[in-house]
Amino acid sequence: MISSALQSLRSGKPVLIFDSSDREGETDIVVASQFVTPQIIRMMRKNGGGLICTTIKSCHARKIGLPLLEDLYSSNLSMGRALTDTNDMKYDKSSTFSITVNSRDTFTGIPDIDRSKTVNHIADFIGNIKNEKPEDFARIFRAPGHIHLLIATDGYFKNRRGHTELSTYLVEQAGLIPSATIVEMLSDSGYSMTYDETKKYADQNSLDIITGDEIIKYWGENH
Amino acid sequence: MISSALQSLRSGKPVLIFDSSDREGETDIVVASQFVTPQIIRMMRKNGGGLICTTIKSCHARKIGLPLLEDLYSSNLSMGRALTDTNDMKYDKSSTFSITVNSRDTFTGIPDIDRSKTVNHIADFIGNIKNEKPEDFARIFRAPGHIHLLIATDGYFKNRRGHTELSTYLVEQAGLIPSATIVEMLSDSGYSMTYDETKKYADQNSLDIITGDEIIKYWGENH
Repeated sequence: MISSALQSLRSGKPVLIFDSSDREGETDIVVASQFVTPQIIRMMRKNGGGLICTTIKSCHARKIGLPLLEDLYSSNLSMGRALTDTNDMKYDKSSTFSITVNSRDTFTGIPDIDRSKTVNHIADFIGNIKNEKPEDFARIFRAPGHIHLLIATDGYFKNRRGHTELSTYLVEQAGLIPSATIVEMLSDSGYSMTYDETKKYADQNSLDIITGDEIIKYWGENH
Repeated sequence: MISSALQSLRSGKPVLIFDSSDREGETDIVVASQFVTPQIIRMMRKNGGGLICTTIKSCHARKIGLPLLEDLYSSNLSMGRALTDTNDMKYDKSSTFSITVNSRDTFTGIPDIDRSKTVNHIADFIGNIKNEKPEDFARIFRAPGHIHLLIATDGYFKNRRGHTELSTYLVEQAGLIPSATIVEMLSDSGYSMTYDETKKYADQNSLDIITGDEIIKYWGENH
């Protein structure tokens, strides 16, 4: 249920998003970045286990001068074009990874308290953005760091249907600062958790679980 | 005991390395990359909890054309110099992060089986390196990905005393392919685990735990 997921996000609760069985087939734990706490980072690393990433919209990334790593690598590494070639990537044609950052107000950047602070500072920065320039961003953040920034593709599901777009859109629809913090749910099987495994986890922990299809249907009806 | 840690590494067992109380004050789980398995990745994400990274020596990085992110960002981003400025970094003056990669023979790159495969393929590549060029690397790996490459500083402890150098040096001294896979040990307190917490973990799991000081002393006597 979209409405229930929106309500959860507004109250700072995690929701689970399964993208699609014909895409990654992965479920991410999703929290609005503005409500992330050290306890939530701990839960994400323990019960998710993938990379903890924070999304922003591409209009904000452009303002701050944040690149897609694909573009940065392909333009500036000797083997960049070959290295970023995604012809053999099975579930999409591009990744949304941008650079990694730490808030300058952290120590090493990796403990739960540090990663939570970095995420909150990203939400603060985005929430207050007006005429900010790259230099303003660099006063608050250092790179490389320990939080992976992801840039949601312009036009959302017209152009890409990954967790980056699904989670950012949902947080934005909840009326919150449009930045989600997400992590993949991994199984002890060695693979990502199946939908059934994550559904069971959602039920046991009273969390909403929704699919990419539901979100894209909602978007189709509301934009 | 260095000799016991070297023996553990040779048998594919993890060892713990605490850098120093006047540096990060963090302990990393360290495994020789050539012996990483999906079970070891699972243990690292569950009992470590930080970023799972794979080290290589700088002579190999140069051969493959792998950059330090600090250099890549500062040369190619509009705010690069400001963003990578480490004047306010409290425990070191530089980071050893290079790009993230996936083996091309993975699906999304994040499940334990995928990350293990990427790490093994890095060890294979380094172990067989002769006249390899950047293009050869790009045939086997895609970027951005889900394993963080770290580049050990030339000259080891003459120039830097981080986990990247400590772990790579130790694996090399064990006579193995000089690539370590490492992850920070985080505490439920919200901070990194203290030395006492990691010592307790080591004792409970019959693992070697050694300090940066011990490794640097050994290096001083043996190089």
